[in-house]
Amino acid sequence: MPVDTRFYERRGTLSLGELAEKTGAELRGDAQIELTGISSAANGRRGDIGFLDGDGKSPSDVSTDISALVVNEANIPHVPEGVPYLVSRFPRHVQSVAGAALFRPRHADWQGEARISPDASLDDSVRIGPGACIGPGAVIGSDTVIGPNAVIGPGVQIGRKCSVGAGASLFNALIGDHVKLLAGVRIGEAGFGVMPGPHGAEDAPHYGRVILQDHVTVGANSCIDRGAFDDTILGERCRIDNLCQIAHNVVLGRSVLVAAFGGISGSVQVGDGSMLGGRVGIADHVKVGEGVSLAASAGLFRDVEAGETWGGTPAKPIRQWMREVAWLQKNSNPKKKG
Amino acid sequence: MPVDTRFYERRGTLSLGELAEKTGAELRGDAQIELTGISSAANGRRGDIGFLDGDGKSPSDVSTDISALVVNEANIPHVPEGVPYLVSRFPRHVQSVAGAALFRPRHADWQGEARISPDASLDDSVRIGPGACIGPGAVIGSDTVIGPNAVIGPGVQIGRKCSVGAGASLFNALIGDHVKLLAGVRIGEAGFGVMPGPHGAEDAPHYGRVILQDHVTVGANSCIDRGAFDDTILGERCRIDNLCQIAHNVVLGRSVLVAAFGGISGSVQVGDGSMLGGRVGIADHVKVGEGVSLAASAGLFRDVEAGETWGGTPAKPIRQWMREVAWLQKNSNPKKKG
Amino acid sequence: MPVDTRFYERRGTLSLGELAEKTGAELRGDAQIELTGISSAANGRRGDIGFLDGDGKSPSDVSTDISALVVNEANIPHVPEGVPYLVSRFPRHVQSVAGAALFRPRHADWQGEARISPDASLDDSVRIGPGACIGPGAVIGSDTVIGPNAVIGPGVQIGRKCSVGAGASLFNALIGDHVKLLAGVRIGEAGFGVMPGPHGAEDAPHYGRVILQDHVTVGANSCIDRGAFDDTILGERCRIDNLCQIAHNVVLGRSVLVAAFGGISGSVQVGDGSMLGGRVGIADHVKVGEGVSLAASAGLFRDVEAGETWGGTPAKPIRQWMREVAWLQKNSNPKKKG
Repeated sequence: MPVDTRFYERRGTLSLGELAEKTGAELRGDAQIELTGISSAANGRRGDIGFLDGDGKSPSDVSTDISALVVNEANIPHVPEGVPYLVSRFPRHVQSVAGAALFRPRHADWQGEARISPDASLDDSVRIGPGACIGPGAVIGSDTVIGPNAVIGPGVQIGRKCSVGAGASLFNALIGDHVKLLAGVRIGEAGFGVMPGPHGAEDAPHYGRVILQDHVTVGANSCIDRGAFDDTILGERCRIDNLCQIAHNVVLGRSVLVAAFGGISGSVQVGDGSMLGGRVGIADHVKVGEGVSLAASAGLFRDVEAGETWGGTPAKPIRQWMREVAWLQKNSNPKKKG
Repeated sequence: MPVDTRFYERRGTLSLGELAEKTGAELRGDAQIELTGISSAANGRRGDIGFLDGDGKSPSDVSTDISALVVNEANIPHVPEGVPYLVSRFPRHVQSVAGAALFRPRHADWQGEARISPDASLDDSVRIGPGACIGPGAVIGSDTVIGPNAVIGPGVQIGRKCSVGAGASLFNALIGDHVKLLAGVRIGEAGFGVMPGPHGAEDAPHYGRVILQDHVTVGANSCIDRGAFDDTILGERCRIDNLCQIAHNVVLGRSVLVAAFGGISGSVQVGDGSMLGGRVGIADHVKVGEGVSLAASAGLFRDVEAGETWGGTPAKPIRQWMREVAWLQKNSNPKKKG
Repeated sequence: MPVDTRFYERRGTLSLGELAEKTGAELRGDAQIELTGISSAANGRRGDIGFLDGDGKSPSDVSTDISALVVNEANIPHVPEGVPYLVSRFPRHVQSVAGAALFRPRHADWQGEARISPDASLDDSVRIGPGACIGPGAVIGSDTVIGPNAVIGPGVQIGRKCSVGAGASLFNALIGDHVKLLAGVRIGEAGFGVMPGPHGAEDAPHYGRVILQDHVTVGANSCIDRGAFDDTILGERCRIDNLCQIAHNVVLGRSVLVAAFGGISGSVQVGDGSMLGGRVGIADHVKVGEGVSLAASAGLFRDVEAGETWGGTPAKPIRQWMREVAWLQKNSNPKKKG
């Protein structure tokens, strides 16, 4: 997915040779190749540079349109014929240097005294509380209410009949109609990802967005991070309680319910109508089918098929969990065992 | 409990016949009955419309003063003789339509440039940080300090010698004396409740309040939701750590301690002097007696008598939990078992 | 550690006799001793008053420089010869009365319309979003970005090339270079500590600071409390995910990673390079060595040696935990057991 220029300003282009020079990476192929974007290796388009990292044993797909790659030694065999590339001990770091040269986050340039940017487009019916800040390029639809001291970042789109709570903040986000964001919600911050760099751990860059479809509700002080390259998406009528964490690249279907302290790690997918009890955690990359129920406090580390009910940590089918709980209680009791 | 007009502006009245027409519900009884409020079926007063939902097998009490009901088919037998009523597949939805016609939340109308409303009543000794917003009808007592960028909603009452942290927000709340709310606290947001409606899940409306009695302290970024019809109440000297969630209609007694990540679900009651360790969760409608201790990480799904100490998930008496932990460790160890 | 006058204004001095009179404590020793500060008993300097509380069976060290103590009956034998002291049922309460007489938190006096104090020192290259508030005495280094509606408290120091997210707040904190604080972060609030007082439980006062070293990242809506007397410290390149809680007096080494909902209780120490999975909790005063891994959902109540990997609640070595999980599953299954 191309970087959304509503949120990232294009700074210009960069040749593969220039990137090699900036980073000390070894150039293999045409130095003149012009880079205009960054992406995952699998989803790259023309002009993009992607990366291949890790031990090379389960290599990522590489898009046939991608213009260049940066790889570590172990992944050199996986560079498709004819694709120019760089070799580095820190492929993601090199790619992040390209990203920083190509794009500049518009939120970092939002400054000054004007709380409501003259370059924002607000329907006349929008009601704005005192102290709210609305950035350049933001678009807000009819009958939407922005609470006091809320912050709507540059380029953010909000539909009709939405409400944004006091002190909430939104960046890099596209919001449908009838969406309710309660006080202190944090939409579109960078996700939590650490990658090695030449001077130690670095934060993985996040160029994706948050998409909230119509009728989504998000509870107070909950956080929904933007994606790395792709988007974090909540389907229609999802309902998220207070103090939940939805990580980068998560995709929730329609009408998913997440109770308080729900924690959904990076790239998790949850099917339509699934229900997560309080304090449920899901490990990264796990896939949860439609209509799944996860009991309060469950810690899920595996995929779950549609329609199942699971509980416990590590989570398992609820009957099995309940049987284990009862069996342990009975057998550990010296009075009842005999 | 009647809807508090400090927080909800009365829009006028509505007849039962008009409500039937608006919602397509079937009218049984006097169309001219004038509705002036909404409530639970059990606590309705004259003018109120309540609802009866569910399978009808354990019907709610119905107040003898209530003016009307809206019920599903299964609950028709439980409508008291002489009470006019509507029949709908979605009783709570129909009631919420009545609520929206009768009341308008004052916080939704708070807009404009004036950070401190000329209609707020502030003692001369109140100190107000830069960027703080104080809504119309708010009342703040002597020697209270409001932090920078904090938000005090319309009609909120705050006593003497309180402090409200930076960026905190309060709505629909009545706050005693000597109360400390740290930065980012969210008081009085709508609770998490989902009810069926004609177009899918809807958020259950919340017309109640948050009551914090004297000497309560609430930690940073913690959330205390307002009640649905009744109030969420924290007794004197309750102390809540950072990042806790207190749901709608919870009632905590005096001097209850809740450590970080404590999660207290809807309608839970906790007795005086009880102590909840870090990351304790309590399922909805559970009753906890006085002087109870819940060990860190406990997940409580059942009522607990006064004076008990429980731990584990699902929580049980602490000795039993510790016995199970020790027994499992011993018996699963191939070296020590034989 | 002396109270940092960048954050606490000195109000004057207090004699030991005056403190006895204010609090009803019994004076033993020279009433004229002048008190100029407060501290733990172990770290007191000249002018400080410390306290000794508890049953006296494992008494704290007492600094030889300390000017006075306040103790309960059980700790009278542990007062070093020649140190004047007060006797009270509530030693920490008496000390807190001294603290309040000697120091006044500068954040409590920050008021008025000026969002950016003329007494703050900002490098010309600092970019400040709309609505941000910067207190008197704050110092901000070059190329740092302060987000919209963020709050930088009086006396806070922030280095170069940092970013502070929308709506975040910082008090009583010293921040290095290249530090990223995402939206809604709460740095430097008072920790959660309850002490007995004459009228019931009171909040323990917190005069320490938060120190974030270079290249630290803190996720959205996470909280890092300031220390009681000493500091809460995060070493270089620590990375904290969203919705984490770092309590008072915690010391994290370099490059410690804490995933979402991590909860680190008071006075915990964690060694360099340790990694905490999602929703890991650590009980107070626990020491974790270097390079330790704690699996997601672990609840740790004991010290862990360097290099270990632990999981479960209560946490234990990961192999043992996994063995217990597998053994329980197998033995509780009626089909597989026989």
